[in-house]
Amino acid sequence: MTYGLGMLLDDGLVMIADTRTNAGVDNISSYRKLHVLAAGDDRLVIAATAGNLSVTQTVLAMLKEGLPGKDGAPARTLDAVPSMFRAAQLVGEAMAAARNQLAPGLAADGIAPGVSMLLGGRIGDAPLDLYQLYETGNFIERPAEQPFLQIGEIKYGKPILDRSIRRDTPVDEATKIGLISFDSTMRSNLAVGPPLDLAFVPSDPDQPEVVRRIERDDPYFADLSRRWSRLLNEARAQIPPPPFLQ
Amino acid sequence: MTYGLGMLLDDGLVMIADTRTNAGVDNISSYRKLHVLAAGDDRLVIAATAGNLSVTQTVLAMLKEGLPGKDGAPARTLDAVPSMFRAAQLVGEAMAAARNQLAPGLAADGIAPGVSMLLGGRIGDAPLDLYQLYETGNFIERPAEQPFLQIGEIKYGKPILDRSIRRDTPVDEATKIGLISFDSTMRSNLAVGPPLDLAFVPSDPDQPEVVRRIERDDPYFADLSRRWSRLLNEARAQIPPPPFLQ
Repeated sequence: MTYGLGMLLDDGLVMIADTRTNAGVDNISSYRKLHVLAAGDDRLVIAATAGNLSVTQTVLAMLKEGLPGKDGAPARTLDAVPSMFRAAQLVGEAMAAARNQLAPGLAADGIAPGVSMLLGGRIGDAPLDLYQLYETGNFIERPAEQPFLQIGEIKYGKPILDRSIRRDTPVDEATKIGLISFDSTMRSNLAVGPPLDLAFVPSDPDQPEVVRRIERDDPYFADLSRRWSRLLNEARAQIPPPPFLQ
Repeated sequence: MTYGLGMLLDDGLVMIADTRTNAGVDNISSYRKLHVLAAGDDRLVIAATAGNLSVTQTVLAMLKEGLPGKDGAPARTLDAVPSMFRAAQLVGEAMAAARNQLAPGLAADGIAPGVSMLLGGRIGDAPLDLYQLYETGNFIERPAEQPFLQIGEIKYGKPILDRSIRRDTPVDEATKIGLISFDSTMRSNLAVGPPLDLAFVPSDPDQPEVVRRIERDDPYFADLSRRWSRLLNEARAQIPPPPFLQ
């Protein structure tokens, strides 16, 4: 399992993903699921992936190599697409191709070939954008009234996002809330685990982006996790007991 | 969808269930999912149900009517079983029978016949017990190290339980936490909704049990929901911003 989160705020784009991969419960390892797919003077395209790891890796390799051009045209890569919409189309095409190639073999072993992806970033002078891609390569843009999208194990960490994340939430605050959402998920599901990968792309193209790993023993994350536990306990204590049981 | 929660504490057994039922998103109604299956001087057996409503109702009707006895013996009901374990076996048998009867017809329409159930209560002088029954009628007892079981839409409301519910949590506190768990779930999933049904069976058999409905406009629940939102916001504000984005 995996948990991936993308938040498109006034301040910029934040993407966070965990790194735990498991084939069953006795084969657990750590793989990067947050990937910079294209980076250049005019573009930065970042993906968070969830689902079957072999299919995901095939999609990433196809995108790196480029998808076949028509009639001998050069291979199509994310370095050349003119917009985030076209980027989502190209990635969706790679997802569909990888699925078609691998699904029959996986199905014979009863393995689901499903993958999903968050695709965010900026190309040219257009504003930042964020897409969610489904397993057959179809995709949606982030809904206007909801500034975040999730993939993978989304439910444990969704209530705190539903309560708190708005388009105008400052990026520091939103990142903190995002990490609380990961903390809740990792406590309730062993299939989501540290380290976490984080990317921040500011809305202002002149500001530098941040891509970094939050390690298992990161002091800020450990402190956040401890504080949140304590604060939730204190919050609970402030709610009066129910009158139903007398 | 449905959310059902059972907590077996030192103080007693608490069961809570919502009442929303939906066939698709355009056919939403309200049905009781917390049922007293047997009540008498020596027994109180309560069930929370989730899953296909027609299958659930068939199971409940079978149990009320009694399952066929062998060789002309009288019909077997929960009024006569000697223990909670035998009660779980009888309910499981009814679930399997209802499934066998209804699944082929439902399958033809592509409808999943799955139901699940929490079964809690006390029979005779034995202590309170709590079981979770799966769709084929097999079941597990509440694990010794975890005082709660959930059915239906369990994930949104699980983190707060994982953090807070212990066997020795006082029943007032546990009920409050359970209602916070329902509040989080109802905020994130429209398929779980009020009113809620609540049952409390004290460990002391001389204390009276409580079965009551918490209506949509219940002042305590509305206050809890408002306070919890405010307290979560205050808790978030007390966590320092992440150092990653500078």
